Amino acid sequence: MSEMPVFGAGIWHFATYKDRYATEGYGPPVGLLEQIDKAGAVGDLSVVDLNWPFAGFDGSLDDVKAALERNQLRAVAITPEIYNRDYVKGSITNPDPAVRAQALKLLHEATELARELGCDYVKLWFGQDGWDYPFQVDHKTLWRHSIDGIGELAAQNPDLKFVIEYKPREPRVHMSYDSVARTLLGIEKMGVPNVGILLDFGHSLYGGESPADAAQLAIDHGRLFGMDVNDNFRSWDDDLIAGSVHPIELFEFFYTLRKNKWEGVWQLDQFPFREDCVAVANTAIDFLKIVERALDKLDFAAMQKAQDEHDAVTALKLAREALFTSY
Amino acid sequence: MSEMPVFGAGIWHFATYKDRYATEGYGPPVGLLEQIDKAGAVGDLSVVDLNWPFAGFDGSLDDVKAALERNQLRAVAITPEIYNRDYVKGSITNPDPAVRAQALKLLHEATELARELGCDYVKLWFGQDGWDYPFQVDHKTLWRHSIDGIGELAAQNPDLKFVIEYKPREPRVHMSYDSVARTLLGIEKMGVPNVGILLDFGHSLYGGESPADAAQLAIDHGRLFGMDVNDNFRSWDDDLIAGSVHPIELFEFFYTLRKNKWEGVWQLDQFPFREDCVAVANTAIDFLKIVERALDKLDFAAMQKAQDEHDAVTALKLAREALFTSY
Amino acid sequence: MSEMPVFGAGIWHFATYKDRYATEGYGPPVGLLEQIDKAGAVGDLSVVDLNWPFAGFDGSLDDVKAALERNQLRAVAITPEIYNRDYVKGSITNPDPAVRAQALKLLHEATELARELGCDYVKLWFGQDGWDYPFQVDHKTLWRHSIDGIGELAAQNPDLKFVIEYKPREPRVHMSYDSVARTLLGIEKMGVPNVGILLDFGHSLYGGESPADAAQLAIDHGRLFGMDVNDNFRSWDDDLIAGSVHPIELFEFFYTLRKNKWEGVWQLDQFPFREDCVAVANTAIDFLKIVERALDKLDFAAMQKAQDEHDAVTALKLAREALFTSY
Amino acid sequence: MSEMPVFGAGIWHFATYKDRYATEGYGPPVGLLEQIDKAGAVGDLSVVDLNWPFAGFDGSLDDVKAALERNQLRAVAITPEIYNRDYVKGSITNPDPAVRAQALKLLHEATELARELGCDYVKLWFGQDGWDYPFQVDHKTLWRHSIDGIGELAAQNPDLKFVIEYKPREPRVHMSYDSVARTLLGIEKMGVPNVGILLDFGHSLYGGESPADAAQLAIDHGRLFGMDVNDNFRSWDDDLIAGSVHPIELFEFFYTLRKNKWEGVWQLDQFPFREDCVAVANTAIDFLKIVERALDKLDFAAMQKAQDEHDAVTALKLAREALFTSY
Repeated sequence: MSEMPVFGAGIWHFATYKDRYATEGYGPPVGLLEQIDKAGAVGDLSVVDLNWPFAGFDGSLDDVKAALERNQLRAVAITPEIYNRDYVKGSITNPDPAVRAQALKLLHEATELARELGCDYVKLWFGQDGWDYPFQVDHKTLWRHSIDGIGELAAQNPDLKFVIEYKPREPRVHMSYDSVARTLLGIEKMGVPNVGILLDFGHSLYGGESPADAAQLAIDHGRLFGMDVNDNFRSWDDDLIAGSVHPIELFEFFYTLRKNKWEGVWQLDQFPFREDCVAVANTAIDFLKIVERALDKLDFAAMQKAQDEHDAVTALKLAREALFTSY
Repeated sequence: MSEMPVFGAGIWHFATYKDRYATEGYGPPVGLLEQIDKAGAVGDLSVVDLNWPFAGFDGSLDDVKAALERNQLRAVAITPEIYNRDYVKGSITNPDPAVRAQALKLLHEATELARELGCDYVKLWFGQDGWDYPFQVDHKTLWRHSIDGIGELAAQNPDLKFVIEYKPREPRVHMSYDSVARTLLGIEKMGVPNVGILLDFGHSLYGGESPADAAQLAIDHGRLFGMDVNDNFRSWDDDLIAGSVHPIELFEFFYTLRKNKWEGVWQLDQFPFREDCVAVANTAIDFLKIVERALDKLDFAAMQKAQDEHDAVTALKLAREALFTSY
Repeated sequence: MSEMPVFGAGIWHFATYKDRYATEGYGPPVGLLEQIDKAGAVGDLSVVDLNWPFAGFDGSLDDVKAALERNQLRAVAITPEIYNRDYVKGSITNPDPAVRAQALKLLHEATELARELGCDYVKLWFGQDGWDYPFQVDHKTLWRHSIDGIGELAAQNPDLKFVIEYKPREPRVHMSYDSVARTLLGIEKMGVPNVGILLDFGHSLYGGESPADAAQLAIDHGRLFGMDVNDNFRSWDDDLIAGSVHPIELFEFFYTLRKNKWEGVWQLDQFPFREDCVAVANTAIDFLKIVERALDKLDFAAMQKAQDEHDAVTALKLAREALFTSY
Repeated sequence: MSEMPVFGAGIWHFATYKDRYATEGYGPPVGLLEQIDKAGAVGDLSVVDLNWPFAGFDGSLDDVKAALERNQLRAVAITPEIYNRDYVKGSITNPDPAVRAQALKLLHEATELARELGCDYVKLWFGQDGWDYPFQVDHKTLWRHSIDGIGELAAQNPDLKFVIEYKPREPRVHMSYDSVARTLLGIEKMGVPNVGILLDFGHSLYGGESPADAAQLAIDHGRLFGMDVNDNFRSWDDDLIAGSVHPIELFEFFYTLRKNKWEGVWQLDQFPFREDCVAVANTAIDFLKIVERALDKLDFAAMQKAQDEHDAVTALKLAREALFTSY
């Protein structure tokens, strides 16, 4: 039996949330150190992804390091907040060149911090870069701006990886990095080895992709640098508990990773708006362990044979037997 | 030529917004009185729908009345905030009976205010009443709670109307008042004459309805008490500028109202996250005036004949000719 | 442990298919008697739903009866083909009164046949009744036509049940019986006891409903007369193998039936375009047996308590434990 | 004022249709020559796209040529039927190497015919190449098969163009050429100059793309070789009348083509299941002429300025004024 994978989570998993209606929040604010302590309270969590700037936090970086250490956590990544405050009309694609420059400056800062914390990568999520209306933007320019600067940033920091997390939409009505294939096209243009993709299972699902297929495509381009999981109802980024709606496709996703000998952290990107965040993380990880055991049990040769024949009935039986007997 | 309709808007049209990412807001906060002044700056706006409690406002009701008066605005409705702070796990369907009671109390307060301000109706939008996950709720109980209390509230206040604004989802992953037909089923159970529907064009669109058909159904049940318009891409409640994406179906919606001699305010429920809110209201109203002129020009008899024959080609030609020559 | 339920299938499960591209068919035509023999080859199938007229069949009714008998099958229902040939512009909502009359005549014929074969019900699926374009139809008239005649048909045949199978769309771009709530509204208008709903799990899923909630609503109105299952990706009626995509929600659906002590046939409505139809039926039934065993194992009291508290984490854990240990 | 564009249509626009329910067809069969005559009856149609083999036609190629000539039509393209009969489990991605070889042979035949008829391109639409179920295929192999052979075919026929028409799904539940970006990725791998994209407006819409953005991306890669238009409700390939639902985005699409000085045929890919096909073509072309006139009237410099500022309100006003005054 294989060892259990390394589990991780975005630190925002342990925050409280607002939205456009519940502007007063789904609960009292939770400070950064408290978020880290909650992450530490999850049984099997080893790494976290931290936002930068540290929102509402006026302590020192050493405080953060100490909190991580006392919870036996490592920062696997930094996610700069290029979608808040100054960037609601776009970060690197903002119509104002001064804002574009400011966004790049923030990316450089985040890169420094990632290096300082020994992270594996900087995560770029361009939630405000895109458009809302027909006729609003010149698509040629927008896409050029989406690519410009990232390659340069990566070239200047060859010791770090940069990952783009694509998503179809939200908060922008349409984001420019909207799919695995579009993101790969952009990355190829950049022409650097250290920009890749972070594949969010739920973003892929609700973008109409098969996450297993998206993972394979990114792997075949040598660009699958990270992934995270959650679940949704295929029409929005609900960030529900992994496995709560689509256990079969989640299993197929991890099957594809295992088949390709892909190794990396199994991260959670869940938003427990109304639930206890520690319980939500634990129950998701419980299911991921079922998946891991099922992968150990699955007959890969028989599965390959069924897939070579496009034999859905046999392939599904094999998958079902492995998954439903690994509780 | 008919007179122009009365135009209105939700007062939140003139606020600034937050969402789960841009938690610091899309702009500096705008106070209630300033929102009213902005509404007054729109050329053709006569009425507004006000939230209760007045969020972040510590002035008096007289201040609000004065602000309305100086802007020649009337409060057409009160929308109680049963989706914020205490109600994120549900208002009248909350699992906790104390919260359900508190929600009803807030509805009574809002009713008093509506009477005080001479409103036409109290608007009930149950954004947090529903569920997120499979197995989370007992659907029989949830639906019963969705209905309980509303009929009583309405019976106690026969001088006012109460409207339910249905929507498929958001913030809840699934709302219990999700569609026109479901809402009519619930209203029929209540058995009172003064509960009806406020039909939001965009909610209907993205719920997979034809808004014209939804309006006709509500009218045929004697329950279309209000409506508002906006636009979206059919997969989310984007609250974009009315007519910016679906001008033909918007025209069909108003055609259905005119054909049924329905009279009421043409309201805007738009969220101009990144745009100037006054300009957004004005440009929407400009399009609604095109629609009104097109209705004056449309050959209703010829349209009826085409519809009697299900003749899409002729019906669309008639609609197109009227709409595209009424700029 | 409870007895296994009665399993059934639409006879079309064992046919070959055409679509608008593969007009020559996904395989050589399979005659009615051969379809029945294939149904008989499925291990646990007891009943079938038959179309009327018997397409491409020139044998006698006795031949059909004999084929059913030799396969130990019973006809549970007749589904009249009111969506083919003469009815592509609508059956009971056709703009031509002569076609509407002809459709009703066909329904009466199907009713006679259902009585002759000892069926439980006649199934009404109005696949061509609706509209394609904005402005195409007068929605008031269309809905009135959707209701007219059915109540009368049912009143004249009080010994039989009539079930309406709603679906959002296909082949019509929008069908008039599109959702559980709309269908219940229509049935209430008819005012007869023997018209109910056949709830297709996949139609409910891709219409944006929660099938468990839809089932509860129909039960609470005393109108859940039948159901069938399959699966899809929530954007179309794919009619895939039950449990292949949404096992959790399928389990919740059957949980709701069991909780309400609903009894009836567990039917399959799958379209195995490219697979062996017998294998597809068998593998689906295998999963339904897992579901049945999981229902026996599930702690209903604990689940009720979790649902009373809207406690998604606990509810999902209980469901997961029961379902993933019942292989 | 610019000259009117060349209008074209797929010859199937003038056929009758079947689907999985109306297996007897939406009307009596229409032979190939009759289809061509109907195309000729449309006022402004100059070119047609022909399927190969000529389904149900036993005349000679000279008969076809004569029919085209007497209707003053030219064959702009050949679309081989690699989605019918032998190819329902895939053409070039079929699990059986013999079927893959047969599919390539058919593509070569179609290429010969395209040359013989003086066509501009061979159109490749891989409707059956993809998958239906989780776990059904090895995605690496499927994608490799999707690419293999096409580059070779194109290299051997440098005098002709080959266009891939992507589409998210149907008849396959998921097609491998599903989006503009994925298709561009595949084409880049082929490494030949004469394989490009045919962008179907409706496929782009319902795949969640902005068609204007998709067109710009294909142009920027030098791969927009053709396009066709129609309309739908964003959840399926309804192939409705162009402009009947999304006139604004259709206008933006053509604006993008004009801005890039893209020249080519404005083709129709509509399926008038229940309407008169000649009337449907004429009314669509009438709207396309409105669009063309609106492009002549639009202030391109002002639009560019608004887009440079991401100023949606101004951009939409400019577009609306041009489009709604060009009837």
